[in-house]
Amino acid sequence: MGRQLGWWGSLVASSGFMRFVDRVLRGVGQVMFQDNPLTGAFFVAGIGWGSYAAGMPQVAIAGLVAIIVATLTAQWLRADETSLNSGLYGYNAYLTGLALATFLAPGALLWAYVVLGGAVSVVASLAISNVVKSWGVGALTFPFCVTTWLLLLATYGFSGLAGTALPSASVVTPFEPYAASPLGIADLIQGTLHSVSQVFLKGNGVAALLLLVGLAVNSLPAAVCALCGALLAVGTAHVLGAESALITRGLLGFSPVLTAVALGAVFYKPGWRVALYAAVGTIFTVVAQAALNVALTPLAIPALTAPFVIVSWLFLLPKQCFEPPSTVSLDTINVDRTNIDARKPAA
Amino acid sequence: MGRQLGWWGSLVASSGFMRFVDRVLRGVGQVMFQDNPLTGAFFVAGIGWGSYAAGMPQVAIAGLVAIIVATLTAQWLRADETSLNSGLYGYNAYLTGLALATFLAPGALLWAYVVLGGAVSVVASLAISNVVKSWGVGALTFPFCVTTWLLLLATYGFSGLAGTALPSASVVTPFEPYAASPLGIADLIQGTLHSVSQVFLKGNGVAALLLLVGLAVNSLPAAVCALCGALLAVGTAHVLGAESALITRGLLGFSPVLTAVALGAVFYKPGWRVALYAAVGTIFTVVAQAALNVALTPLAIPALTAPFVIVSWLFLLPKQCFEPPSTVSLDTINVDRTNIDARKPAA
Amino acid sequence: MGRQLGWWGSLVASSGFMRFVDRVLRGVGQVMFQDNPLTGAFFVAGIGWGSYAAGMPQVAIAGLVAIIVATLTAQWLRADETSLNSGLYGYNAYLTGLALATFLAPGALLWAYVVLGGAVSVVASLAISNVVKSWGVGALTFPFCVTTWLLLLATYGFSGLAGTALPSASVVTPFEPYAASPLGIADLIQGTLHSVSQVFLKGNGVAALLLLVGLAVNSLPAAVCALCGALLAVGTAHVLGAESALITRGLLGFSPVLTAVALGAVFYKPGWRVALYAAVGTIFTVVAQAALNVALTPLAIPALTAPFVIVSWLFLLPKQCFEPPSTVSLDTINVDRTNIDARKPAA
Repeated sequence: MGRQLGWWGSLVASSGFMRFVDRVLRGVGQVMFQDNPLTGAFFVAGIGWGSYAAGMPQVAIAGLVAIIVATLTAQWLRADETSLNSGLYGYNAYLTGLALATFLAPGALLWAYVVLGGAVSVVASLAISNVVKSWGVGALTFPFCVTTWLLLLATYGFSGLAGTALPSASVVTPFEPYAASPLGIADLIQGTLHSVSQVFLKGNGVAALLLLVGLAVNSLPAAVCALCGALLAVGTAHVLGAESALITRGLLGFSPVLTAVALGAVFYKPGWRVALYAAVGTIFTVVAQAALNVALTPLAIPALTAPFVIVSWLFLLPKQCFEPPSTVSLDTINVDRTNIDARKPAA
Repeated sequence: MGRQLGWWGSLVASSGFMRFVDRVLRGVGQVMFQDNPLTGAFFVAGIGWGSYAAGMPQVAIAGLVAIIVATLTAQWLRADETSLNSGLYGYNAYLTGLALATFLAPGALLWAYVVLGGAVSVVASLAISNVVKSWGVGALTFPFCVTTWLLLLATYGFSGLAGTALPSASVVTPFEPYAASPLGIADLIQGTLHSVSQVFLKGNGVAALLLLVGLAVNSLPAAVCALCGALLAVGTAHVLGAESALITRGLLGFSPVLTAVALGAVFYKPGWRVALYAAVGTIFTVVAQAALNVALTPLAIPALTAPFVIVSWLFLLPKQCFEPPSTVSLDTINVDRTNIDARKPAA
Repeated sequence: MGRQLGWWGSLVASSGFMRFVDRVLRGVGQVMFQDNPLTGAFFVAGIGWGSYAAGMPQVAIAGLVAIIVATLTAQWLRADETSLNSGLYGYNAYLTGLALATFLAPGALLWAYVVLGGAVSVVASLAISNVVKSWGVGALTFPFCVTTWLLLLATYGFSGLAGTALPSASVVTPFEPYAASPLGIADLIQGTLHSVSQVFLKGNGVAALLLLVGLAVNSLPAAVCALCGALLAVGTAHVLGAESALITRGLLGFSPVLTAVALGAVFYKPGWRVALYAAVGTIFTVVAQAALNVALTPLAIPALTAPFVIVSWLFLLPKQCFEPPSTVSLDTINVDRTNIDARKPAA
């Protein structure tokens, strides 16, 4: 593996085009905090499969278009090289592209939206990072949420863009009892896997396995945290009495998965104290996901990964209470430095 | 009194358990900015009476459970000793516990919610303090609002938790004329007292008197500001034409009471200029309370003390315009240092 | 012109009253970032004409009352002289006064509201500036939005104040097809002009021309950016399929006009790179305007200039990517220093 990546490193160093491809792949990997092009390749494969299987290949393409536009935009804006090389200006754009093509009908204006969203997500990343880095935290996926929320909300005012998978609006209503389908072990396994793949807006078991492999090639702790976070989320949602369909489709678990990885394996030095803290954060992210689903009901837009962002900021800001991982430097936005790259080949 | 508290100080110094009790009581006192265990004891008594009289003893118990969990959490997180000893990690939890038990039906999951809310309120306190202290202000009760809002909103997505006293949702509608019951002097007095007790979510005259006594034993200016703030709020709401029931039940006055105490007696050096400024802030808090009640109508959750937080931040951030009280140091979150403690017995 | 303003400078220096008038006029000019009393006079004339033509003279008067109250409040608060002399504590109040009288029915309580809004807008300006200046940006018109939103929302809870022009509430609904009136060249010109005048909540071509002249006497680039921003906004809204009536009335263009001036002519050093960046920001402001119109539908309040504030903050925070104009110093809130004043008469 080290040899393979040493070869990759030489290739990247030798060609502007391959440098660009490397930035794009690392950008995809950074959706789950992994600064590794191989991880990114596994993620692209998983999302490609998930989109194809769902009969919506334009979703995977929109993600790639948005991240390419974003990387070009960041280069045009002369954003700092280190962050560019780590893919930190790409992950929000990738999610923005996936979300726009998931929720909106195909058409020429959708692609204009994807390009605009990709470019603006970089501006939002730079802006939000500049604000939150003084507090010692990263922008996480908040630039994705802000950019995508504005673009989706605006479609209700434009005839040129139409939602196909947006929630319908109502004021908040009490939980309506329904004939719950009792959840068996197969349902819980599906819910767990789909919680992982819904990080990229896909409900697909194969995609989930490709994502987990992509995580594991760069960071085994991250893969373990993702899986445990998904299990804990599914269990919590079930105990609290959430709707079965939401649980099995992974729709209450994707934000908790991100929280579990962020708190458990990336931004703090792993250990039992951190594991307990991350577990509380993961459980509270299930609450926050349900809460934001409810709060956005009158607006007819999805919560995206905002529950992860809110809870992770709350749990990362008290940084004086835990040791940082020795490998994270404070001047980076959102980066796991325990990566395998050309300059430091894995053993 | 000094002698009595000197005795208390020795007791606290001699025993880990009494140190813990002292932290809890000061935490209750900090809901109204008082770092004094005797004040906290009066507050606990008032809330206990108010809960018992309303036939909801679980409310007072939930407040105590939450603050005990919060104090243990803060100790486990190794939060700083000075703030711990001043009760600064407890007041948000106490309010969170009271609110959850006030708005939700009793049951096993309610108590799980109270424990989770108590723990998360500490994380939120540490997080929000870290952000706002660079601006020179404290977290106030914003950690309580954020934690409780998320927990309450989520109940609309879970069958395991049900609201019993939550507002019902609708889109915003113009003010509907109703046959107002003309307010007599007795109504205004009740509205004033209930404005004080509603700081702790109770509409109860005896509780209000116990709260005022609790304030007065530590800070007479704070008690005077609370009473004057309540009167001003009731008068303002009446002049603007608010619904009589909201006025007499103190539901437009509790946030203004907190603003009046914060601006008039705690964070600025008292004087005529500050009094006028605090009066404008108190009046504007009535507007903000009505505004947030309206804004949260589609979401079916209460505004809690957010109007106080928003207006107090607005009026505290221009700190260059006034002298600070000599007794507040900038590295504290939210603390009135004019307290009677073991190291500085009252004369 | 230089001679005229030299004469004005002497007058201002010689009299406390004229100093006050100068502060008020510069405050009006600062709505569009111009620190120039002559610009302010043109703006006052334009708004006066627009109000008179609409049969609502109280709107223009309310703007002036609010800015006078605000300037007195800032002086009473001993706000810093430089900002006071540049009108930076006035522009939010002027907009607040215009908005309150535009959306609410006349009456004694309206004028109490205008006075309260004028005073509170200064507190909000000081507060928000203190927060955002550490990030290197200004408060823009966010104090106006916050103050006015709270005051307008509260009217739904008070019988003493009634909306006359407030939107009615509903949950978000999909875009409803309607028989669009095809837009001719005259419609597009009207939409462009009204986009400029709607910065001050007026749909009036003569007012727009007076505003553009007022801009041009202080800064030709600002006038050009305003006009180009309006054109770009009208074109973008049309291509995306916005409702014709919103386009021709300028209701999707006023925020983009402000973004175009801020990004293109005030806070960055003008040039082709900045022009392209400003164009993207202007286009995205149209999206943000449509989005906030939708998001505020359940609350029955207008978006005001919040879309401009949000997008301009996003596009100004990545300040490392562009050169600042040499004439802006970092310790000012929101000021174009390329002004003609007594100390530096124009050539």
